[in-house]
Amino acid sequence: MDNNSNFEAFKAKMQKVADINYSSAVLQWDQEVFMPEKGSEARARQLATLAGLAHEESVSKELGKLIEELLSDATVTDKDRRNLIETKRNYSDKLKYSTEFVMKMSRTVSEAFNAWQKAKKSNDFNSYADQLQKLVDLKLEECEFLGYGNHPYDALINQYEHGATKASLDTLFNDVRSQLVPFVKKVLALDPPDNKFMYKYYPKDVQWKHGLKLLEQMGFDFKSGRQDISTHPFTTNFSSQDVRVTTRINENDLGEMIWSCIHEGGHALYEQGLPASDYGLPSGEYLSLGIHESQSRLWENNVGRSYSFWEHNYPVLQNLYPEHLSTIRLDDFYKGINKVSASFIRTSADELTYHLHVLIRYELEVALMDRQISVKDLPSEWNRLYKEYLGINVPDDTKGVLQDVHWSHGSFGYFPTYSIGSFYAAQIYNTAEIQITGLKSDIRSGNLVNLKKWLNDNFHYCGRQYTAEELCKLVTGEQLSLSYFMDYVQQKYSGIYPQLKNG
Amino acid sequence: MDNNSNFEAFKAKMQKVADINYSSAVLQWDQEVFMPEKGSEARARQLATLAGLAHEESVSKELGKLIEELLSDATVTDKDRRNLIETKRNYSDKLKYSTEFVMKMSRTVSEAFNAWQKAKKSNDFNSYADQLQKLVDLKLEECEFLGYGNHPYDALINQYEHGATKASLDTLFNDVRSQLVPFVKKVLALDPPDNKFMYKYYPKDVQWKHGLKLLEQMGFDFKSGRQDISTHPFTTNFSSQDVRVTTRINENDLGEMIWSCIHEGGHALYEQGLPASDYGLPSGEYLSLGIHESQSRLWENNVGRSYSFWEHNYPVLQNLYPEHLSTIRLDDFYKGINKVSASFIRTSADELTYHLHVLIRYELEVALMDRQISVKDLPSEWNRLYKEYLGINVPDDTKGVLQDVHWSHGSFGYFPTYSIGSFYAAQIYNTAEIQITGLKSDIRSGNLVNLKKWLNDNFHYCGRQYTAEELCKLVTGEQLSLSYFMDYVQQKYSGIYPQLKNG
Repeated sequence: MDNNSNFEAFKAKMQKVADINYSSAVLQWDQEVFMPEKGSEARARQLATLAGLAHEESVSKELGKLIEELLSDATVTDKDRRNLIETKRNYSDKLKYSTEFVMKMSRTVSEAFNAWQKAKKSNDFNSYADQLQKLVDLKLEECEFLGYGNHPYDALINQYEHGATKASLDTLFNDVRSQLVPFVKKVLALDPPDNKFMYKYYPKDVQWKHGLKLLEQMGFDFKSGRQDISTHPFTTNFSSQDVRVTTRINENDLGEMIWSCIHEGGHALYEQGLPASDYGLPSGEYLSLGIHESQSRLWENNVGRSYSFWEHNYPVLQNLYPEHLSTIRLDDFYKGINKVSASFIRTSADELTYHLHVLIRYELEVALMDRQISVKDLPSEWNRLYKEYLGINVPDDTKGVLQDVHWSHGSFGYFPTYSIGSFYAAQIYNTAEIQITGLKSDIRSGNLVNLKKWLNDNFHYCGRQYTAEELCKLVTGEQLSLSYFMDYVQQKYSGIYPQLKNG
Repeated sequence: MDNNSNFEAFKAKMQKVADINYSSAVLQWDQEVFMPEKGSEARARQLATLAGLAHEESVSKELGKLIEELLSDATVTDKDRRNLIETKRNYSDKLKYSTEFVMKMSRTVSEAFNAWQKAKKSNDFNSYADQLQKLVDLKLEECEFLGYGNHPYDALINQYEHGATKASLDTLFNDVRSQLVPFVKKVLALDPPDNKFMYKYYPKDVQWKHGLKLLEQMGFDFKSGRQDISTHPFTTNFSSQDVRVTTRINENDLGEMIWSCIHEGGHALYEQGLPASDYGLPSGEYLSLGIHESQSRLWENNVGRSYSFWEHNYPVLQNLYPEHLSTIRLDDFYKGINKVSASFIRTSADELTYHLHVLIRYELEVALMDRQISVKDLPSEWNRLYKEYLGINVPDDTKGVLQDVHWSHGSFGYFPTYSIGSFYAAQIYNTAEIQITGLKSDIRSGNLVNLKKWLNDNFHYCGRQYTAEELCKLVTGEQLSLSYFMDYVQQKYSGIYPQLKNG
């Protein structure tokens, strides 16, 4: 075979793997959104079978041989070479897993997840501690055979944010500790704005239709996607031309739907913006979880919680709910939706304290992987850190260490990508404001097209042709730095809490 | 391996194939119900990949070896042996297909289907005739390598209704010709009842909720299934505990939703009644298309168009739509919904003329496969037969030979199963009335539980452990005969058309 037909053979194999994985995604989406309850048993086996088939195809000897042949071929284009290198990295990692380990991990995760569900219901962390400890031990075993530079945590974070290390995260979170934590303390000491108007009765139907309008305004392509309802909002895709978002509606909390909808919409625009012609190749896939989250957070916070955005959208909202909002002025609405408060639950935190929740989880994960603490210490350490960083006493483990599903899934190293995403978002948005002429006035008039196009052209088009660090430098001119986020929040919150200006 | 672990290995392989096929079913369901339009390209490739994987697994040498070993093992139970024999039959058939033929067939079907869609839109049969002729030629080729007894048509019908032959169909349709056709002619000559009240404005929301109530009344288990909306109503399943039905709602035709809902509900009760523990084995799957259709038609017609059913349900319906129905008496409603008329479109035909539509298609299929006619003769032959059997002049091919999708899919031999299903239904319902004490008064009071249970216990429990003929004999005491259907319609329609009594 010549180089060209070799590459076509390589692409065909990659697309076959993608076909199976996207099929799994359809089954998972259906499971979350529509599946009747008794369907779960067969669905679990169907997903396991598809996972097995995808694994077999993605570690096939033929694929490995094609990669090597093509990599040693000097006529391969730069873009193709990048795809080959990325694929080889995944291929080599996957080969490190023995079937025995994969099955053991799958069993341990199932047990830990079931134990977590029960423990959360009954507020009984101890009933779950042994299963979680087993999972931690197994993750450490995984780190060993995957290999890492300086710290086992490197192997964990690398699965979600390729190129990130414990050292780079330490730098970032040290800045969070020295800059954001004191800033949050200052804000929390001030009189908060009122936001009671957000918790009136907001009927489901009106919220649902409004959510669709928001997605439409963002430029979500409904011919290439749809929105449904699920318990936990998420985005998934079965190609860049079939992207599904979900939202949830709380009739007593107007904000829940609005920002989950804009957040998932941001994820969805990224997926819809990936090149359809690169289906199955790294260049057709999202770059990293941090970059993915940067897209959702940029829309949710930098746009969706901005004054400019609501200059256009608040009158619309007032028209939908005149009984609750006609007497609330835009200024007060804006301040209310940006109220900062020390709370127990990460997923409902404001955009400032959110990162303290993540910081706490990062510190605990590192300590666990260092074996400085063991799982049984988690509740007391959790509560100690919530007292230290947020000044609050966790009342019980359900509102504390048991709140998140992630650890029970074995997803250690995942949480930091949430903060990384927000910090990237601030840096990216700063560049957008410089590069897009009239962005602010666009947004004030409800025109979000230029922003979407800029993100398409600068972030979405390239898939995984760069590392996150490379792409960040390419577009913003420098590597990820907390300073943009700090500048953004200092400016924003001094408008909401005027006393800050004198701080 | 001993026999037991050998059978477990066999079962595991069969379940793997089922996992893949049911995954495809999820993707197909989503495609019909929710998929955004641009999702179709990737979906097509995902389905093709899954089909390829399922085929590979279902013709694997290991599977063939296990079947042979187990079949020669005297300790295998009768039930297991039946599963092995059924599997071997499918396995041997699948082995007869060359990859080349499968690909050629797939391409030809795609072309024919696309050509049919265009031809139907533009009422231009000739633009599609060549593609269809190619498909007919290919089907004849398929018959040759599959093998058959007396007639190539045997190989076609055998794919949908194992055990049926052209000879057995000829017997059945000769009876249709000599008994049903003259009866229909007699009915059509009489003054029809009025049914204009069915075509008022019936709002979608009310219809949708009513449909769910009908399914509930039938005993559809919503924990093991759900209903959605699609262009063409259908039933699919991803296990016996996840059965999906769809319906369509026409706001100007009350009947469309009601009987499509009950019809699909009948299919769904069959799937929900199959033994979950036999997932992936023939004994966990439906018996034949004719038996499947017998379940849907029994509910749709023998129950859902009966006077007894509406004794309970008509007052409910009147309450939903008092503006249109309060002045229509139950007797007139019952007569109206059973109006017989000669019409062009099979899918909206009444339960009498329906079988004349099928008879016409059967005659044409046999003539095509006999090469007595070629595709280019189809329109004139179609129109001649509609004149002959239904006494109507087909105005154009869109309302004639172009109306059905089946032939463009290569589904020759499929249509007869619709009639077989209705004829089985009449015979089965006759037995149900004998065996279920108080069935009529159950139905008059809206209690359908005993009927469902009887069907579960006599038809659903056994999956494909029998042939259709065996099961029919086992339950009804004799083989399929048109006489039950004729008795049923003669009795029924002489109540609706009193002049028939004197005929």
